[in-house]
Amino acid sequence: MKLIFSKNDLSKGINYVLKAVSSKTTLPILRCILIDATEGTIKLFANDMELAIVTEVEGDIVVPGSIALDSRIFSEITRRLPDGDIIIETDENLNATISCENSLFNIPGQDASSFPPVPAIETEESVSLSQFTLKEMIRQTIFSLDMNENNKLMTGELFELKNNALRMISLDGHRIAIRKLPLNGSYNGRKEIVPGKTLNEISKILSDNIDDPVSVYFSENHILFEFDRTSVYSRLIEGEYFHVDNMLNGDTSTKLTVNKKSFYGCLERADLLIKDGDNRPIILDITDNNMNIRITTNMGAMMEDLPAEKSGNDIRIGFNPKFLMDAVRVIDDENITLFFINQKAPCFIKNDEETYLYLILPVNIS
Amino acid sequence: MKLIFSKNDLSKGINYVLKAVSSKTTLPILRCILIDATEGTIKLFANDMELAIVTEVEGDIVVPGSIALDSRIFSEITRRLPDGDIIIETDENLNATISCENSLFNIPGQDASSFPPVPAIETEESVSLSQFTLKEMIRQTIFSLDMNENNKLMTGELFELKNNALRMISLDGHRIAIRKLPLNGSYNGRKEIVPGKTLNEISKILSDNIDDPVSVYFSENHILFEFDRTSVYSRLIEGEYFHVDNMLNGDTSTKLTVNKKSFYGCLERADLLIKDGDNRPIILDITDNNMNIRITTNMGAMMEDLPAEKSGNDIRIGFNPKFLMDAVRVIDDENITLFFINQKAPCFIKNDEETYLYLILPVNIS
Repeated sequence: MKLIFSKNDLSKGINYVLKAVSSKTTLPILRCILIDATEGTIKLFANDMELAIVTEVEGDIVVPGSIALDSRIFSEITRRLPDGDIIIETDENLNATISCENSLFNIPGQDASSFPPVPAIETEESVSLSQFTLKEMIRQTIFSLDMNENNKLMTGELFELKNNALRMISLDGHRIAIRKLPLNGSYNGRKEIVPGKTLNEISKILSDNIDDPVSVYFSENHILFEFDRTSVYSRLIEGEYFHVDNMLNGDTSTKLTVNKKSFYGCLERADLLIKDGDNRPIILDITDNNMNIRITTNMGAMMEDLPAEKSGNDIRIGFNPKFLMDAVRVIDDENITLFFINQKAPCFIKNDEETYLYLILPVNIS
Repeated sequence: MKLIFSKNDLSKGINYVLKAVSSKTTLPILRCILIDATEGTIKLFANDMELAIVTEVEGDIVVPGSIALDSRIFSEITRRLPDGDIIIETDENLNATISCENSLFNIPGQDASSFPPVPAIETEESVSLSQFTLKEMIRQTIFSLDMNENNKLMTGELFELKNNALRMISLDGHRIAIRKLPLNGSYNGRKEIVPGKTLNEISKILSDNIDDPVSVYFSENHILFEFDRTSVYSRLIEGEYFHVDNMLNGDTSTKLTVNKKSFYGCLERADLLIKDGDNRPIILDITDNNMNIRITTNMGAMMEDLPAEKSGNDIRIGFNPKFLMDAVRVIDDENITLFFINQKAPCFIKNDEETYLYLILPVNIS
């Protein structure tokens, strides 16, 4: 095999697939990136058996072939080489030579045939959305996952295609986060649970451009994201997800609108007084046109008044400030609206269209 | 006590003194910042018993007084408050109230009288230099310290005032770093060993402006740096420093000039093939107008040729690439010159004026 790349193209491709390289595995082949130039194009592969990424890289195929190279050393060599053409050659003993200008590296490779193949997915029904939108939807929900695998279902997000919308839902024992995206087509109720790790990794390589599309496909056990010249395959989590919609009902008796930035600043200040393990609540005292916020812990006390627009009953309610912060942080609106039922029922933060909805359980302060 | 600050002034002052707050101490008072407004100005103090920093902060003294506040919570509250005037008040029970706009914190304080005083230093003989120069001299020598306190002397840098120059010298078992600064006055041979930790912390608060001066004073056991409205006191390390000048002699037989950036890039690439614990040398093969650089480790091999201007004998010599990198990294010249004696003698990297001089021991490759 002999291939010639620009440093920039090769680096970009490596950075994409690195997201699917296992750092913990004891199988050396899973720590590798596969370079495959046997079928007319150059593709890089990585596969940790849960997540697999394939990306096509621009380059000249002088002699076709394939090889698997240790991802760490391959990526670092590429990054540190001068900004010239990078030539990768292999010999019959699977030794790879990586050269650029006056610099020449020899590193041992592994046989491409031992590299695990990507899952086969029939690309029939698909959802197309903007890469930026998908990235935003992940950012605005992923914090509610519970990655401590006590309940495997909570380590993933539900992708729900129903009627003409995609909903992404995450939850742990204390809160629910929902983002809804209206779609053009109509879908008949597909529900799949996508691992949080997959969403985390893919959001690092999705573009920030609203005009760049990504297509999403499902098979029985996998999800496939296709964008640019890259395919990301991930296993799905098996099981029946929580019936979230049942938890979203309730007659709200108080509605409060507050400036997002001021509220978030106040929550951050309250959080200063909380040390790990100390779970004192922040107390919101909501009266006409005012929200009084206070917290008392072993470290001290904090008190603050925020102007707010209230309709309905006065209410006094306590929360873990971290859960409020997580939700408020990712809302980009200038003002946010909170809905309360009573002191012991969940609070909702949502907009009129319900393109976002956050449910947070209160803390007992009676 | 009642004081009023702008957030900006108070934050800046806190950031200065934080460098002398002990994070490891079990004495709560040493984790505090002392605010002293008893003598007409407002001063902040921190003191970990090795290093003490005092800085004057702009502000209004409504009621004079003093209090010591836990540094972590005080600095974080200040940082997170809105950008308005910050008011700090204390009551007779040492409770402090920190308020800004609608936000109000109550935190417990400690009695100022239990705070350790700064050392008394007679400010007679002093050296004045630019803050930027001192910062640069620290950056260009501090990497050669050995902070594993096997030999206490190696954890500090020698400040040597002799004739009309200041030299700063650091060394460990493998190398020596020397920076020399010509001074206007003449000095009669003062030598003091300043802890590396002190130099590290002070370089974080020195300005990058070549016109901002810093004055340096010595007492028997302490060094004092005065700049802006800040004083940094540090204990000195006791003992007789190494006689470095004896190690700098030797008839050099090879002189080599090479582009700094190319050489450094090449060293970085060689270093990629070294894992922790694997101490394979990098081998320099110097012939007319060429330096061939190569390394072979368990991970692979690397080879590179660099154009270089040589006078004297050809030489083949091995080094730990980290030691070469550390020295080459901090030299700002476009080209650097290396001097060799023989394969088993140290190499010198220095300029004509010897404002910098780095000695590095070779590794046996025979």
